[in-house]
Amino acid sequence: MNILIKNPSILCFDKEKVFIENKDIAIKDGVIQYIGEIPKSFEYDKLISATDKLVMPGLINTHTHLPMSLLRNYADDLPLWEWLTEKVWPIEPKLTEEIVYWGSMLSIAELIMSGVTCFNDMYNFADTVAKAAQDAKIRGCICDTLFDKTRDDQSDFKITRDLYKKWHKSNNDRIRVFVGPHAPYTCSADYLKKIIPLAKELNTGIHIHLSESIKEVQDSINTYGKSPVKHLYDLGLFDVHTLAAHCVHLSDEDILILKDKNVHVLNNPVSNLKLANGFSPVYKMLKNKINVALGTDSSCSNNNLNMFEEMKLASILNKGITGDSTAVPAATALKMATINGAKALGIEDKVGSIEVGKCADIILIDLNKPHLYPKHNIVSLLVYSIQGSDVDTVIVDGNILMENRKLTTINLEEVMQNAQLCAEKLTK
Amino acid sequence: MNILIKNPSILCFDKEKVFIENKDIAIKDGVIQYIGEIPKSFEYDKLISATDKLVMPGLINTHTHLPMSLLRNYADDLPLWEWLTEKVWPIEPKLTEEIVYWGSMLSIAELIMSGVTCFNDMYNFADTVAKAAQDAKIRGCICDTLFDKTRDDQSDFKITRDLYKKWHKSNNDRIRVFVGPHAPYTCSADYLKKIIPLAKELNTGIHIHLSESIKEVQDSINTYGKSPVKHLYDLGLFDVHTLAAHCVHLSDEDILILKDKNVHVLNNPVSNLKLANGFSPVYKMLKNKINVALGTDSSCSNNNLNMFEEMKLASILNKGITGDSTAVPAATALKMATINGAKALGIEDKVGSIEVGKCADIILIDLNKPHLYPKHNIVSLLVYSIQGSDVDTVIVDGNILMENRKLTTINLEEVMQNAQLCAEKLTK
Ligand SMILES: [Zn+2]
Ligand SMILES: [Zn+2]
Repeated sequence: MNILIKNPSILCFDKEKVFIENKDIAIKDGVIQYIGEIPKSFEYDKLISATDKLVMPGLINTHTHLPMSLLRNYADDLPLWEWLTEKVWPIEPKLTEEIVYWGSMLSIAELIMSGVTCFNDMYNFADTVAKAAQDAKIRGCICDTLFDKTRDDQSDFKITRDLYKKWHKSNNDRIRVFVGPHAPYTCSADYLKKIIPLAKELNTGIHIHLSESIKEVQDSINTYGKSPVKHLYDLGLFDVHTLAAHCVHLSDEDILILKDKNVHVLNNPVSNLKLANGFSPVYKMLKNKINVALGTDSSCSNNNLNMFEEMKLASILNKGITGDSTAVPAATALKMATINGAKALGIEDKVGSIEVGKCADIILIDLNKPHLYPKHNIVSLLVYSIQGSDVDTVIVDGNILMENRKLTTINLEEVMQNAQLCAEKLTK
Repeated sequence: MNILIKNPSILCFDKEKVFIENKDIAIKDGVIQYIGEIPKSFEYDKLISATDKLVMPGLINTHTHLPMSLLRNYADDLPLWEWLTEKVWPIEPKLTEEIVYWGSMLSIAELIMSGVTCFNDMYNFADTVAKAAQDAKIRGCICDTLFDKTRDDQSDFKITRDLYKKWHKSNNDRIRVFVGPHAPYTCSADYLKKIIPLAKELNTGIHIHLSESIKEVQDSINTYGKSPVKHLYDLGLFDVHTLAAHCVHLSDEDILILKDKNVHVLNNPVSNLKLANGFSPVYKMLKNKINVALGTDSSCSNNNLNMFEEMKLASILNKGITGDSTAVPAATALKMATINGAKALGIEDKVGSIEVGKCADIILIDLNKPHLYPKHNIVSLLVYSIQGSDVDTVIVDGNILMENRKLTTINLEEVMQNAQLCAEKLTK
């Protein structure tokens, strides 16, 4: 389908700046074909009139566990250990493909409705998460969660290899597969040493949790005599393209390692606060030119998947903890939620900005809301004032997934009803 | 108008707990007349079918500067001093009644649309803010900002006296007037000493900024040899019912003073982070049984008036800074945004909870959204998952101000257009 977007404001990036331009956009076969002067010969099936609307790159949620939305608000305000052992873990054996499917679909509906066009997920039943992404036509990266000794290594690795064969670059390259060791504290050194060659063999990245809590760092120092970051570095894990979620508790040496090895950091400010882990030194990492992207983590520790909340919090939290009101300005937060996410996922040649030749992963914001008036600075408005519900239209890979807030690939009533039934099955 | 709300879930408070009940509600002449069994004889003009909806007390935004929404996103990510001296202050002399009116109306539209039924404002042109509140039929407290030496004392005090005579308990007691010295660092000790008897004479409260920045505390120690809290205490200001906004930087002695003198603290977590002032020790104040309510501060330092964002941030920020995931649980955050606000404003006998005999200041939430599924714990859902746009219907004093997201007392298009024009007048 060819689409013409008429009269929008467009959020544009160049190397230094983030700015707004007013130009038309033509989308042909899923790709941004023209920005600005559209040739008279361009034929379109769909015209989107975008006066009073802003076009920006779709948000990229780089750290999720989609099926866990079924446990949204199931167990909050509890000590971490009680939460995990009494609430989350007893439920996981009850999971089935059906339950995971509806949990994933519920999350994907929420993602689209709050402007996310691409996610990066880690969960068991990754095959089912991919199936849901395929059905909804959203862009997504998946990985099977690898824990030490829950299965034997060979069957573990077979699952990841099978996922890779089945899904990697499938669906017009909308779906990609990573290797997903859960964390340095749940995977032994020996196990991680076998994972690294697997990632190299598949020529894909590693998605891992890293330095999320103080306890994790202390335990690592007690066990290995070094921080989790240094531990992974010494194992050679960072020789693979690595996406490290959290990175809350970092020494200056850790930061230098992350920088030297081009590790991509996935910052989840809401989850880090809510689980009482603290806050990540994003301002320091950015100063060191580390690529920092944003994620929500699961709805079990957030408790939604709203990337606009993460953007605002990443910006104001770093101001608050540094005492510097210029830290992580709005433009930086917008890049963290878009192009930095694309870089982390290794798809910055395809998505993350509105540029000719890139895939049409685009969202339209309805600016005609009282909390978005007056319009002094649209970049600020998009970070500090906006709500997820201000997203009006969502396009992924040239397919319209939401128009005027109506989902086109998802039957929302069916998804909500099934999600409720599945949640009750899980927790009763 | 008499209203029957049929089949809602209701958010209820008792001394210990926050819980959900399913009962009908009857509103007669602006007052909640029945909850539960509604007598067959009850006649209503309006039936609200509330299946799939939740009824809760309207949110109370206890610290605002409504007209400043005209400067939303006008100057962000700047050092505080540059922001004030180059951006905010040069604009204030250009203010007119017309500009203040449309700025206030823009803010009131946003407040209603995100579930706020009562605000507490501090600004010059307070008479115009009150006029806007009257026109929109929202509940609000106002005060004229009192700065040392900008006018002579007698004309200052005359403005507050005139406001009091004209507005206090007007509009069926929806509008109240406080005395509003700006802050201990902008009002001299001598000036504050004259303000205290004024508040006593009028038998109303004092609304003041207090201990917002480290600089304020250090300057107070340099000038008076004591903290701003101790300074106000020694002046006898806390003998009057006091609403103290911010209270970010507090010593243990300060906290004991606030507790002993029953000072009401107005916490603004978003603004405190965004202006790089840090975070208030809310968990400590709550432990000391200090009444802590919530506010947004102005859209110039936030940059919206969304109390749901404040609730979530108050809860998760206190978890993050204490390392205790049980700190400021969802139920506490909900009370901070409702009944604690009513206590701070001295109107807890009238509003802040859904109880027979209280004014019908009620909001209805549409729970039929993907980010609000599944429904394990509605109290959690209302703090951690919800968006301001999930508010469906807003009732203040028995008047329906919004129904199915349509405002009834405000012409939204007219307000947005005038706000844009006024903002351009101000900044050009
Ligand atoms: Zn995670
Ligand atoms: Zn203020």
